[in-house]
Amino acid sequence: MSKAFLDDNFLLTNEVAERLYHDYAKAMPIIDYHCHLSPQEIYENKSFKTLTEAWLYGDHYKWRAMRANGVPEELVTGGPDVSDYDRFLAFARTVPKTIGNPLYHWSHLELQRFFGVHELINEQNAPVIWEKVNAQLEAGGFAARDLIVKSNVKVICTTDDPTDSLEYHVKIKGLSDFDVKVLPSFRPDKGLEINRATYLPWVQKLSEVSGLPVDDYDQFLQALDSRITFFHEAGGRVSDHALDYVPYAETTKEQAAAIYAKALSGQPVSLEEEKQYKTYTLLFLGRAYAKLGWAMQLHINAARNNSSRMFRTLGPDTGYDSINDSDIAYPLSKLLDALDSDDSLPRTILYSLNPKDNYVIGTLIGSYQGGGIPGKIQFGSAWWFNDTKEGMLWQMNALANLGLLSRFVGMLTDSRSFLSYTRHEYFRRLLCNLLGEWVIQGEAPHDMELLGGMVRDISYDNANGYFDF
Amino acid sequence: MSKAFLDDNFLLTNEVAERLYHDYAKAMPIIDYHCHLSPQEIYENKSFKTLTEAWLYGDHYKWRAMRANGVPEELVTGGPDVSDYDRFLAFARTVPKTIGNPLYHWSHLELQRFFGVHELINEQNAPVIWEKVNAQLEAGGFAARDLIVKSNVKVICTTDDPTDSLEYHVKIKGLSDFDVKVLPSFRPDKGLEINRATYLPWVQKLSEVSGLPVDDYDQFLQALDSRITFFHEAGGRVSDHALDYVPYAETTKEQAAAIYAKALSGQPVSLEEEKQYKTYTLLFLGRAYAKLGWAMQLHINAARNNSSRMFRTLGPDTGYDSINDSDIAYPLSKLLDALDSDDSLPRTILYSLNPKDNYVIGTLIGSYQGGGIPGKIQFGSAWWFNDTKEGMLWQMNALANLGLLSRFVGMLTDSRSFLSYTRHEYFRRLLCNLLGEWVIQGEAPHDMELLGGMVRDISYDNANGYFDF
Amino acid sequence: MSKAFLDDNFLLTNEVAERLYHDYAKAMPIIDYHCHLSPQEIYENKSFKTLTEAWLYGDHYKWRAMRANGVPEELVTGGPDVSDYDRFLAFARTVPKTIGNPLYHWSHLELQRFFGVHELINEQNAPVIWEKVNAQLEAGGFAARDLIVKSNVKVICTTDDPTDSLEYHVKIKGLSDFDVKVLPSFRPDKGLEINRATYLPWVQKLSEVSGLPVDDYDQFLQALDSRITFFHEAGGRVSDHALDYVPYAETTKEQAAAIYAKALSGQPVSLEEEKQYKTYTLLFLGRAYAKLGWAMQLHINAARNNSSRMFRTLGPDTGYDSINDSDIAYPLSKLLDALDSDDSLPRTILYSLNPKDNYVIGTLIGSYQGGGIPGKIQFGSAWWFNDTKEGMLWQMNALANLGLLSRFVGMLTDSRSFLSYTRHEYFRRLLCNLLGEWVIQGEAPHDMELLGGMVRDISYDNANGYFDF
Repeated sequence: MSKAFLDDNFLLTNEVAERLYHDYAKAMPIIDYHCHLSPQEIYENKSFKTLTEAWLYGDHYKWRAMRANGVPEELVTGGPDVSDYDRFLAFARTVPKTIGNPLYHWSHLELQRFFGVHELINEQNAPVIWEKVNAQLEAGGFAARDLIVKSNVKVICTTDDPTDSLEYHVKIKGLSDFDVKVLPSFRPDKGLEINRATYLPWVQKLSEVSGLPVDDYDQFLQALDSRITFFHEAGGRVSDHALDYVPYAETTKEQAAAIYAKALSGQPVSLEEEKQYKTYTLLFLGRAYAKLGWAMQLHINAARNNSSRMFRTLGPDTGYDSINDSDIAYPLSKLLDALDSDDSLPRTILYSLNPKDNYVIGTLIGSYQGGGIPGKIQFGSAWWFNDTKEGMLWQMNALANLGLLSRFVGMLTDSRSFLSYTRHEYFRRLLCNLLGEWVIQGEAPHDMELLGGMVRDISYDNANGYFDF
Repeated sequence: MSKAFLDDNFLLTNEVAERLYHDYAKAMPIIDYHCHLSPQEIYENKSFKTLTEAWLYGDHYKWRAMRANGVPEELVTGGPDVSDYDRFLAFARTVPKTIGNPLYHWSHLELQRFFGVHELINEQNAPVIWEKVNAQLEAGGFAARDLIVKSNVKVICTTDDPTDSLEYHVKIKGLSDFDVKVLPSFRPDKGLEINRATYLPWVQKLSEVSGLPVDDYDQFLQALDSRITFFHEAGGRVSDHALDYVPYAETTKEQAAAIYAKALSGQPVSLEEEKQYKTYTLLFLGRAYAKLGWAMQLHINAARNNSSRMFRTLGPDTGYDSINDSDIAYPLSKLLDALDSDDSLPRTILYSLNPKDNYVIGTLIGSYQGGGIPGKIQFGSAWWFNDTKEGMLWQMNALANLGLLSRFVGMLTDSRSFLSYTRHEYFRRLLCNLLGEWVIQGEAPHDMELLGGMVRDISYDNANGYFDF
Repeated sequence: MSKAFLDDNFLLTNEVAERLYHDYAKAMPIIDYHCHLSPQEIYENKSFKTLTEAWLYGDHYKWRAMRANGVPEELVTGGPDVSDYDRFLAFARTVPKTIGNPLYHWSHLELQRFFGVHELINEQNAPVIWEKVNAQLEAGGFAARDLIVKSNVKVICTTDDPTDSLEYHVKIKGLSDFDVKVLPSFRPDKGLEINRATYLPWVQKLSEVSGLPVDDYDQFLQALDSRITFFHEAGGRVSDHALDYVPYAETTKEQAAAIYAKALSGQPVSLEEEKQYKTYTLLFLGRAYAKLGWAMQLHINAARNNSSRMFRTLGPDTGYDSINDSDIAYPLSKLLDALDSDDSLPRTILYSLNPKDNYVIGTLIGSYQGGGIPGKIQFGSAWWFNDTKEGMLWQMNALANLGLLSRFVGMLTDSRSFLSYTRHEYFRRLLCNLLGEWVIQGEAPHDMELLGGMVRDISYDNANGYFDF
């Protein structure tokens, strides 16, 4: 009467959905146009000695679950007297407590898909899972590039600082036995966050790597621009911005230049000035992206490093982030309009971490579509904390109801782990089920060619056409 | 196994829902208490030569979908070398890409209900649909008043500027062969938007049409009041306000008068002064509506004319709007309380374009109910971008959970098109299905008289009792 | 084909859910760790002469529904010529209009569970229900403590002002025939709301009951602290705060002290100063709670007393409240971080009245988990207007997707009525159905021991372990 847990038809609740997934979605390759994989690890073909290394050395989703489960910190992020098995066991004990959380699904999916291990993860099964997986890891075939190839990935866009040398991207390109495109994304957050301690050192580094002076704002912009060119030559075709809030303030170049000068001389910059500086600089960058045919990604409404105590111990990206709730409709509209008004708005993908923004973004993109480019402005796929069944369905339903789901460039991993490609499977199953439900309910015609094409488009073909990789 | 697309039981997933729709909802007449139909077109009984004229000459929903699909602008809004058929074909090619969007349903519903055309809209079927519909248009019986009568509409409230002469409303009243009430709504936005370029000319025009001086604020209010009386005499019983944000600032009459004087003398009015002016003026209007037994409608959280580039080319209402996300709980509560506190709060209908406001509005209305009037303060039906299956269900569920769905005055079209009356069918099907589901799940008693009465009330009887038409 | 209304499997849509509810959830006792029951009424074992007394003397949920239904105020809250039966009849006529509202379910559940009355509530059945219930009330066995014992309640935390003598808590403890723990909660809102008329008299009263001077801020804090100790000695282990908005402003003790001095001398305190004062005081209290192992509850985003007209007549808590929509992510994160940064964050439960905050809170709690305490920071159960099927499911799904549902301390009544314990049944049925659905859909393993344990934990065991009662 009930379906088996995580079987072949996982998340598929009707026949139409099953056919859509198995006949259309499953075989499509992956374009992972935004992730946080390390190009160095790809080049060096990093391998893992134990499941703990693959799962628990850097995955803050798992760390959060363990902490919420009352696991002491040394079993979460490690400590002097803690073995890899201790940590794995602590995680295995936590997994049954994550029922209802996507971690429960991700973890079992990863075991099934990569290692053929079908045991439920819990304390009892911990030893056998540990043994089975580690034996396979030792036998080989699970290094970074193996996992990428197994996952049928065609393109990966890593996330890179403008001052990065991109040496590993170049080296990967030179690999004769690996034909996956690994391209850089331009993420200049440190050059925009004028009030952070990282700003001045970064400006200095920008000058060094570009070989250009940055004594005034004009020079700074030129140095930035030179790095865009550098990324473009290395195959970069996307940028990415973390906008924890969306800045917008009318600003002249003179004002922005004065704020830059202030910051350079070590004087304090007010929040209003920060907004002005960010606005002008973002618009400059947007125009540069548009000229080169890049896509601009804006990641909005994250709240980062909430625990100053743990930040002091562990640094960023360790599980102490959350969702911000700033208003976005007005500043985001003004920002896009400023570019659109002189026809220099690049292809743009808007992501918000806060689902309350779904309907705002879903309608806002409609105000800047055009130029004969299908889906020019995209409502980005559910992101981070929203990579859940309900989060993905909210995003897809909002996009479908307010715009064109058919033109969606689909899923990316946003991940730091080579095992996360199973998230594409998760996404595709939900997509197929959504469409299948519409057919079953008589809300869409039973036309497998039409719907199958739509599934293929969203799985791969739209992204392939949208980005200039 | 799957239901046929858009058949007789479209959106009805169980037998109770089917009976509720077919036996109770279907035959009820329509009171369209808020729309943007043109009284002139009704009086002149406008007819359409082609499907393009009916569908694509003014429907910004369709334009948005076409732009998002990459259709060049001249095929969207027309151009010198573009035929009506070219535009229709471009739309027909877009329709299959709108699967998941209400447009897909609206468009097929309109073809089925008005023209008996059951073909799926796509490139292949474009010629036959074009031929079938245009032949019928030519044969006659599809002029504005025909469509209204076919749709079983009893009352239409158009949306009118206070300076309007209402001549067409008067003329329609005089038609011997058309007994639908076509009444004006009082929409004084231009008199509230003190910071727009339209303000001063509008004040001038108000003076002219009212024959009253507007040299000071008192006179201005009296001129406004005289137009309310004028609308009332023409049968007007509702007003309507577009509050893209909800203004509230404590204001004395002296302050409001000073701000008015400032604006009249061409001096700049600050945002805070704008709020004060709007607050005082809105309260004045609210009291006037209450005295006459009118209903006051507030449309909240739209963001309009986002693309300044396209606004320069096409003007307003061309598909460049979106959802605003301003906070509403505090100012809206203060505004309603200011009227309620001296017992001069009129019947009020609150609409927000942002679904994040549903629970705020759903609870706020409960704070101002009373006076022995059932559902005196209404949570208005899902609006504009929310005229979707999920949007309507969210609104109905919020109202049901937080207030009394039974007392809901139901759907309006908010439309500029005579074909949009099918949206009432859409709404009623969703309503019946919601109630049917409750019965099937044992959450409501299987009492067809009770539930059928509720369906009839929400479809027609509540609005009929609520408004003083 | 449809389920009977409100039968044994009410809200349970599959076999797994049925087994989870009947075999695991149903028999678990209740820990009502937050409610507004009167300790005096418990001690005096208050009984009710009529159903009107039990249902309509103080239930603002019912009052709101009646007002929205057009019932005149004297039949809602009573008047000189109105009998108890008149009021009951007016309510009985309203009930069928509440279909879709949780009131419809609560009311029938209460009749069924406490009185074995299965009639539908409506005008026709009003006389028989009136007679059946009142006969039982007269026969006895329905006094306050009877209802508590019948409901299998083990612990009740009332909501108490710090200046309360707690005499009834002491007296209840002394009752030989009543072994339910009735403990106070520390709710110091009046000591934080520095801008309300209640502030100065309250500070004075604090001084009197504590026997301590409150001439400066230091003394004030010590007086507060002495009351925490007093509550602790009376068994108090939780505090509660109503934060209609979340205050946060960096503040030194000197600044807070100056603001306190200002208020004491009758000078006006600005909004910014109010935030500073509240921030410093809240942090002081948080540290005190942490030292004693208390749990701190924050109730966020209510908007209270919206109708000044009815406030003048009826006072607070009479049905004129609604949902606020202030931004919470930033101030709440700063507030918790300030405590966490020096390891003095107590167990904390965050409730928001606005469902738009669900994902913010669901992720924010993950940033402060730790210290080896399972679920140390809790996303509190759906509250007040959200005590609905959809509201509870939203909260549970958000918690499940973003954190660990398994570690949830579950439901509380938040009620002023002894009949409201049926809300725990409602909650548990929804919980069991949610888990059952996951199993049926193959999203969770069919492991009744695992899921049954989870149900028991959330129903009782988690709260029992979390609180130090």
